[in-house]
This record gives sequence, C-alpha cells and structure tokens, in this order.
Amino acid sequence: MRLPKGFLASGVRAGIRKKRPDLALFVAESGANAAALFTKNRFQAAPVVLGRTDLAATGGRVRAVVVNAGCANAVTGKAGMDAARRVRDAASALLGAPKREVLVSSTGVIGVVLPDRKIRAALPDARARLSAFGVEAASHAILTTDVGPKVARASFSWRGRRGSVVGIAKGAGMIHPNMATMLAFLLTDAPATPAFLKAALRRAADASFHAISVDGDTSTNDTVLLLASGAIGGPEMTSPDDGPGFRRAVTDVCRRLAWLMVRDGEGATRVLDVTVTGARSEADARLAAHAVATSPLVKTALHGGDPNWGRILAAVGRSGARFSPSRVSLRLGPLVLVERGVPAAYREKAAARLFAKERVPVAIDLGAGKASAFKLASDLGHDYVTVNADYRS
Amino acid sequence: MRLPKGFLASGVRAGIRKKRPDLALFVAESGANAAALFTKNRFQAAPVVLGRTDLAATGGRVRAVVVNAGCANAVTGKAGMDAARRVRDAASALLGAPKREVLVSSTGVIGVVLPDRKIRAALPDARARLSAFGVEAASHAILTTDVGPKVARASFSWRGRRGSVVGIAKGAGMIHPNMATMLAFLLTDAPATPAFLKAALRRAADASFHAISVDGDTSTNDTVLLLASGAIGGPEMTSPDDGPGFRRAVTDVCRRLAWLMVRDGEGATRVLDVTVTGARSEADARLAAHAVATSPLVKTALHGGDPNWGRILAAVGRSGARFSPSRVSLRLGPLVLVERGVPAAYREKAAARLFAKERVPVAIDLGAGKASAFKLASDLGHDYVTVNADYRS
Repeated sequence: MRLPKGFLASGVRAGIRKKRPDLALFVAESGANAAALFTKNRFQAAPVVLGRTDLAATGGRVRAVVVNAGCANAVTGKAGMDAARRVRDAASALLGAPKREVLVSSTGVIGVVLPDRKIRAALPDARARLSAFGVEAASHAILTTDVGPKVARASFSWRGRRGSVVGIAKGAGMIHPNMATMLAFLLTDAPATPAFLKAALRRAADASFHAISVDGDTSTNDTVLLLASGAIGGPEMTSPDDGPGFRRAVTDVCRRLAWLMVRDGEGATRVLDVTVTGARSEADARLAAHAVATSPLVKTALHGGDPNWGRILAAVGRSGARFSPSRVSLRLGPLVLVERGVPAAYREKAAARLFAKERVPVAIDLGAGKASAFKLASDLGHDYVTVNADYRS
Repeated sequence: MRLPKGFLASGVRAGIRKKRPDLALFVAESGANAAALFTKNRFQAAPVVLGRTDLAATGGRVRAVVVNAGCANAVTGKAGMDAARRVRDAASALLGAPKREVLVSSTGVIGVVLPDRKIRAALPDARARLSAFGVEAASHAILTTDVGPKVARASFSWRGRRGSVVGIAKGAGMIHPNMATMLAFLLTDAPATPAFLKAALRRAADASFHAISVDGDTSTNDTVLLLASGAIGGPEMTSPDDGPGFRRAVTDVCRRLAWLMVRDGEGATRVLDVTVTGARSEADARLAAHAVATSPLVKTALHGGDPNWGRILAAVGRSGARFSPSRVSLRLGPLVLVERGVPAAYREKAAARLFAKERVPVAIDLGAGKASAFKLASDLGHDYVTVNADYRS
C-alpha cells in the first residue's frame, strides 16, 4: 500500500523487544498539519506529556513521528521525560527538523524508563529505510502481542482533487500483560488546518475508537494522531462543513481500525454490537451501552454463545441510565427477545444461532427518549485469562 | 448453630432446582422489627418490589421470610408479581401472619415466572421442619452454585443482657450463568426500632457488602435484611449512639459474610484487599478503589500472581478520581513499589511472594487529601470463564 503523498515510513529493529521490529518512523517530507487525541488517564506517559506540549507550542505542526514498542515509558518520572526528549532531539538532528515538530510515541511495559540509547542507535537505519511503501513495515513495528497489523485506507475528493487517508493502529485488545495501549496514526494528503483536523478526528473517534471495549481499561499511552501533508494542493479545509468526503474517509478509516482492534481482541471469538436507542440523553445512552459492553457476565455469555438477555438487562439496569423498566425492549438482530419489560415469545434455537455469529447485534430500546449510542465489545474467554494471567513478559 | 431467641428456620426441597434444597423459611415467632436494603438495579425483581412495598406499609414489621433458589422471578411483568403475591399469601395463611408481614425473596434465572405452585406445595413441609437449629438447612437452601453455605455469628450485650446476631448469605460471587444475586439475612434478638436497625444495617453494609466486587454486576434481586425479635428484653435501641456492641456485631457479621462471598467468588483463588487513602473526597477514594477492584487486567494479574502495579496505577488513573500523579504512592503489604509517582527499589521476588497469598493487601496513597475507601475483589481466572461461558443451566 502506498502512503498518501508527502509521507514516508519505515519499521526496523531497535532491540527493545526480542527478535521483533519495534521501531517505526513516519516522516512528513515538507511537514504536516496535525491534530491529536491523547489518553485521559491521569497517569500520562512521558511521550504523551511531551507530545501534548510540543503540539501546543507549534500550533499543530509535525515533521516526524518516532514510535517504539516494548516500553511504555510511563510512571517513570523525570528520567522518563529526559529519555523521551533525547529520542526526540536525536531524530530532530538526524532529519533536520525542529525539535518540537518531532513526536515520540511508546507502548509496552509500564514503570520502565525508555532505553533511549537503543532507539537513537537505530534511528539512522530507520531513516535509511524510509519509503512511500513503508506502511507494512511500520505497521508491524508498532505491535506488541497483536495477532497481526492493522491498516486501513479510504479515498476522497476535494475541489476536484483525489486524495487518500491511510491509518495504522496497534490494538487496545491485544493487551500484553503490561501493555494496554491503543495507538493509531492517520496520514493524509488533504490540505486542512489543525483546528479542522481536530474537529474531524474527534468526531471520527467518537464513532469508532471511543465506542470499542475490550476490557474497559484505558492506558497511560493511548494516542490517535492525524497528519495532513496538503500534498494534493487546493485550498485548505477550514470550516466544519468543508470536505464532507474527507471527513467521511477519516471516519471510515477509524471505524475499520476500531473493528480490527475489537475483532482481534485478546482471545476474542466474537464481537457484541450494542445499540442503545430511546434514551433520555446521549449520556444515558452511553451509560447503558458502556455497562453492557464491559460487563464480565455479558462478555462470558457472548463467549459461550449463550443469548442470555437477563444479563444484558441487568447490566442496563445498574448502568445509571434513566428509564422505566416496563418500557424497555430488546432485540437480537431481527428477533424480539423482550417487549416493553416482558419476555417475548421466540425460538431459543434461533437466538442461539444469532449469538454464535462473528458479530452479534443487540439493540436495546429504553423507551425514554430519542438519544442513542453504540458500542463494539469483544467477548471474554479463556485466552484472555491465559494471555493476561498465565503469560508474563 | 442456634438461632437468636424468637426465630425458627428450615430448608426443604420444592423442586425448582433439581435434586437440591431450594426453599428456606425464616419465622419470627412473635414478629420482628425489620430493616432492608434492596438492589439499586432499575430492573427490580417482583419479590423486591413486593417486599419494599409491604415493609413500607407495616413500618418495618416481619413475621416470616420465604426464600427460593432456582428462579429470580425478575423481568416477569404482572405474571411475576401475581406469582410472588400468591407465595406470600399462602405463607401468610399457613402461619396465621398478616400478609404484609411475610416477605418473599428469590434468586435464580431471570425472565422466568416463579413456579409458585411448587413453592406453595412445599410450604407445609417447611413449616413442619422449623427449628431453632434450622440455620444450616436454611443456609443450604438459598444457594445456587455456591461452593458452600455462608453463615456468621457474633454476640453483644445491651443493658446487661447478652444477645446474638446470626447472618446467612448467598454469594454474589457464586454467579450461575443466570444467577448473579447477593442475598443476606441477619437475625438478632436485640430490641431495636426499625429506624435504628436501618441506620445500623446501612453502616454495616457500607463497610462490607458495598466494598466487595466479584464482577461488578449488580443483580435484579440483591437483598440484605435485618430482623430483630427483641427477645432478650430491655429497652429498645433508638438513638444512633445506642448499642455500640450490637452495631459492632452487625458489622462483624456483614464483614464475615462479605469476605466469604469474595473468597468463594467464581473460580477465585485469591482476594485483592485494596485500600485507597489520601483522596480529596470519599467519592474520589471510592472511584479509585472501584476502578482497581473491577479492572479485568488487575484481576487477571492477581490470578496469575503477578505483582503488576502498572495495571493498578493505570486503573487508578482512569477512575475519575482527582490527584496529581507525582504524589501517588503504592504499597504491597510492607513493600513500597511506587513512591511519589516513581518506581521504588524493591525485590521482585518479595513482591511476587506477597502477590501469591490468599489475601493480597494493596495500599494506594493518592497524596491529595484525607479521605479513604477500601474494596475486596476476587481474581479473574479460567474457572470464572468456565462457570459463566461454558456452563449453561
């Protein structure tokens, strides 16, 4: 797959992880406008703190992104900040880019200071391998225990010019014992201001990354970054109404990456697609969807292929969402299981068949208003326990 | 074990569950003052709705409690309410007690109307077997997939008279595929007003049942009931300062039952004892403790005996509690693992040894204030998945 115009990428081994590529480099040859969403966890890893500060200082300009796997550089105090800065400064010198236009991003073990010497030693190799076709190598190098790389692409047109959005992600679901990070990097050749990009990215994330749940844990390093080189030319997108095609492409790429994250969730065998409608407010809808998507009882029932709607309603009932139980209905695909608070007549076999599919669509109507929300959740099976309890890095 | 004066109990088979006792009867011979805490789930089972109404109508008087396992009678609409009422009325007629002084309580599958005919047919047998030593039989009959019965006892003195509190519970942890209910019945011969009992029970529950987490799911049927016969005589406890010994006994019994619930949690091999101190408010402390106690990543690490403090801090960081990361410290028993936001020097082997014990004490100091909270949480292992996903009733 070719990167959007104006970008090069590579993936190499820095020796942080054993026998696996663990260092990715993205370069915007003439710079790019940028927008980012960072983790809301109070413990923010050093690269997150540094990136947030630098992005604010440049007003959203980025020349390069250095991503490593194997070490999150989180909860590492001043030593961790210094190590992150040394990587940034080394890449800046190597690429001739302003320091603050180089972002660093890390995923891996918490509580260990980044071995920045290894990364700095590998940077020349990473630069030498930079290529417009480097997406595969880069997408491999940011993984930890992911089943495989996650890449998505969509195209758009803007004022008669064709462009593309390419996204590369590391799964929130592929959580190594110490690695619970979601990283996503979106590159595009669209011309757009940082503010426009931020709004587009936020809306796309709400409809994708924010709607997935593997285990409900938010990491110290979660980062979603959108870089726009503007290489297709034409006027910059600025007004929120500009570039509907572009915005749709960003959302499509985010959705595809989010689906891959959940689908490849640890030990995941199927995905629950929860839609809550009829809520009094969006907050109520989200509370209900979140409770269902994170309930261990629902997730184990999903793993067992057991259409146990009692667990789903019990989760909705404790979610904090406001509704009257006698107005709640629940559908499994086309089957009505509960109608206005009372079990409906349905064939158990038909329900079991739907619950055994790769994607299990559950729709809950709270009958209390017009707001809605949706979530994608992976199941909770033996492999999740194996990866997280039995396996120690 | 002998019941407190004024109470009789029995446990029999009604045929709702196969080959297991499934019906318990508690009788207060001369009536009892009563206080209850019911589930806050919006889906309230029929027996909960009925019991709440009847207790309000009598101002807190109870003559008998009928408890069945095997069917929760939840999300069953009018048919479920009618069935619950028929059981109540049959017990009332049999025992010569006012209808509203008979409570019913159910645990089991959601979405199935209570087979009240079976229960009504078994009630004469339950009455015939009533005994002051019926606590063992009753404690067996309320179980579903519990490893074993949960009974606790404590004594107290009040104005020179000795009394006792006996508690019987069904675990929140022993969650059968469709059964996620916590039930606890406390009987005492203390003389006390319903209002006094309510305050004492609420405080005891905050320090016990509300501090445990097996899977974070609250059921449609959760009920904690405290009945006081007053049979030891003497003046009634009314003022909140009355009967410190009695209040301590209630808390002790609740704590012991709560511990048994977590310790016997589904597939549980060990229990995390999380204490959060230094929080800005009690709400902050509870948010942090709750996030740690319900995190699948923490619970699987606990199962694996892996002292993975990065996961614990990541959970605290996303909890919503307010604090500054650079002030947070974390101890594992006597070992300091993190000191003011930075990893401390400790021997990994010593940490691993502490993390492999039956009870793992983790203390998190947020360094932001003076409020505190604690939680007991069971681990998440293969048996949890097996019981909840692979096993279908």
